[in-house]
Amino acid sequence: MKKTFMEDLPSLLGRQVKIAGWVHKVRALGGLVFIILRDCTGLCQVVVKGNPDLVKLARSLNMEDVIEVKGIVQRSRSRQFPVEVVAESISVLNRVIGGVPLDVTGAIEADLGTRLRYRVADLKRPRNLAIFRVQAELVDAFRRYLKERRFIEVHTPKIVVYATEGGAELFEVKYFENIAYLAQSPQIYKQMLVIAGFERVFEIGHAYRAEKHSTVRHLNEYVSLDIEMGFIEDENDLINFEEDLIKYMLQSVEENCSRELKLLGAEVTIPDRIPKLRFPEVKEILVEYYNLKEYEDAEDLDTRGEELITKYVQENYGVDMVFVDLFPLSSRPFYTMPYDEVYGRSFDLIFRGLEVSTGSQRIHQYELLRQMMIKKGLNPDDFKYYLEAFKQGAPPHGGFAIGAERMTMKLLGLCNIREASLFPRDRYRLEP
Amino acid sequence: MKKTFMEDLPSLLGRQVKIAGWVHKVRALGGLVFIILRDCTGLCQVVVKGNPDLVKLARSLNMEDVIEVKGIVQRSRSRQFPVEVVAESISVLNRVIGGVPLDVTGAIEADLGTRLRYRVADLKRPRNLAIFRVQAELVDAFRRYLKERRFIEVHTPKIVVYATEGGAELFEVKYFENIAYLAQSPQIYKQMLVIAGFERVFEIGHAYRAEKHSTVRHLNEYVSLDIEMGFIEDENDLINFEEDLIKYMLQSVEENCSRELKLLGAEVTIPDRIPKLRFPEVKEILVEYYNLKEYEDAEDLDTRGEELITKYVQENYGVDMVFVDLFPLSSRPFYTMPYDEVYGRSFDLIFRGLEVSTGSQRIHQYELLRQMMIKKGLNPDDFKYYLEAFKQGAPPHGGFAIGAERMTMKLLGLCNIREASLFPRDRYRLEP
Repeated sequence: MKKTFMEDLPSLLGRQVKIAGWVHKVRALGGLVFIILRDCTGLCQVVVKGNPDLVKLARSLNMEDVIEVKGIVQRSRSRQFPVEVVAESISVLNRVIGGVPLDVTGAIEADLGTRLRYRVADLKRPRNLAIFRVQAELVDAFRRYLKERRFIEVHTPKIVVYATEGGAELFEVKYFENIAYLAQSPQIYKQMLVIAGFERVFEIGHAYRAEKHSTVRHLNEYVSLDIEMGFIEDENDLINFEEDLIKYMLQSVEENCSRELKLLGAEVTIPDRIPKLRFPEVKEILVEYYNLKEYEDAEDLDTRGEELITKYVQENYGVDMVFVDLFPLSSRPFYTMPYDEVYGRSFDLIFRGLEVSTGSQRIHQYELLRQMMIKKGLNPDDFKYYLEAFKQGAPPHGGFAIGAERMTMKLLGLCNIREASLFPRDRYRLEP
Repeated sequence: MKKTFMEDLPSLLGRQVKIAGWVHKVRALGGLVFIILRDCTGLCQVVVKGNPDLVKLARSLNMEDVIEVKGIVQRSRSRQFPVEVVAESISVLNRVIGGVPLDVTGAIEADLGTRLRYRVADLKRPRNLAIFRVQAELVDAFRRYLKERRFIEVHTPKIVVYATEGGAELFEVKYFENIAYLAQSPQIYKQMLVIAGFERVFEIGHAYRAEKHSTVRHLNEYVSLDIEMGFIEDENDLINFEEDLIKYMLQSVEENCSRELKLLGAEVTIPDRIPKLRFPEVKEILVEYYNLKEYEDAEDLDTRGEELITKYVQENYGVDMVFVDLFPLSSRPFYTMPYDEVYGRSFDLIFRGLEVSTGSQRIHQYELLRQMMIKKGLNPDDFKYYLEAFKQGAPPHGGFAIGAERMTMKLLGLCNIREASLFPRDRYRLEP
């Protein structure tokens, strides 16, 4: 007999089923025992009565014991559970040893440090499964949208010799007799694939930043949703493309994760249009509107700047995200296409006070790219194969990357990005 | 005006379009020039005539120059191209500098070493794009199948402190003040997620093996298609599940990649049933049927064994894949569920002479797992958080992993696994 998932029970009234999962709660009332059983689709109430051996077994169960129940599905009088299973037999598949280190029902809160140390117990809380279901939907929506637009999914190496965002903040790998690094992004490779005629590529994979700071918004290993596309006019094509993609991703979460959103107390708002501001305008807003003279010479946006510009678009456009375009070249990587002497065709998407995505038109001309490397203090010889590719027919192109954990964090109103990573890696955390 | 893809042109007869791509070939016949233009969807013939400036420009084009063409779609008299575009204007978006190091049309073959060194030029060959389209379809089919069966897509860390397949063959990472490793597989994490109540998870991600040998079937960084599921009876549930999954993946390639398969001269054969043999039977076949006495004490299958058993099922079952179950525990990792004293509930899928997938039921009992670690010479203290998880309600479970590049290689009859990796990493190759 195949296991029935909890969420399918309401359609099986009167039928015999086998369900299996974890004992979420046990409530014994004399000869009657209620077991709340949990599987990956939800909770179910199991009623045990009549048979004294079965009642005895049910009373002996501990929270998180793993059991299998055969029984009949019937309507329930409980408010929480529309149906329940009246047990005919119970098999214990595994017993918990020495108790679970955290309260799985979520009644007793633990601090994040403890939760991450005992992450398996922590992830048992239905709230956490909901977070990662939303994340999976975001990722899947990203992929569906791109596949429909003839993007090809690719997998590029994470063991590399190239630095993409500058030479610092790389994790070193001992690669046989050589030294290599973990990729900061698939930048070099997704560009080379566009040039190789793949034209439109996307990749969902890990990216690595050996940043020493420990904040609520940084991970040292994160999931990057990357795209790169050829034959764009300029970065505005990318911004418009990303606007529609982001709206599609939000819509997908709203449509397919209503149960999860409810459980998490989160609401999705889908903007009609995402406002587009230019960096000089943003600076003006910070300096003039917020009267913060210290931003007069700013060459980048800091945390406070990102938060204030979100506040500004909330008050002036009624939305909680904004594209900021034309960042100064000084704060952007070497491959950024210049807009003029000072600014680059590079943009961020800021969502509820946090940069969740960065993109740009890239330089596609060999000589200009070489010069920009030198200007940034990089040695073109260190990028030999990458640079060579630009002699072989590079179309105008560009792309962007969305941080999966950042997007999840902001969408769900989580306070710490670690909550949006199953097993986060940070400055001090390599385990579990 | 938006770029039209080559494959959409046949439905736009008589219409004005903008196409863009790479100059694949140029053929000048006096005042008439034919340009074969390539984009990610295919080739198109562009006809240039009449306007002397346009003809002059067309004659000046080099292979792989990047151009944009506006013109009218009309029926073509060429056999290869059902329609052609009569150019009204041509813009050169980028010129090739100094020629492309490899012949992109595929007329002149180069050895694989040269091809991988100049990989961007090599990937321009339509044959290569076809290989990675098939790979993308395999990956996407894998994902679709699992999503429909309530598996959750997850992303687990690749920077780890645990060895899953034994201590050797790990790449070392300098992680701030600590030493970490690149994950050999998501084994530890996908199991912990099943135990955490995610119940059914899959991951598409990189796995790392610091193997020093350099063969046509090994990569040091590869894409692993991993699943893990709870509440199985034993490994047979997994074998049957994988059989259906593999058939679905092959079917998807057959249905959605007919153009690519034709270009690659590959044929997909979908077995009605994949035969299931047990390791002792396989040994018997090698010893008795093939008269190879040296396999009498074999504890694992080697390359020749995999090839012969494929030959055997081809001759006896008319199929080119086979599951081999019950491998000796001695040749399998510590987490393998024992079948008896000697054998484990662990299986391989062998496809055209190569192991493309390995799976097993896992041990879900804390004490047994601890003992097996010690038996294999591992220190349970090194697996602290993993082992702790088994005290917290581990259901019977198991899973398997499919090597994306191996599957691609065998399906398409490629001679070297490096052809199935965009930018392969091997013993001596870190670039591009």
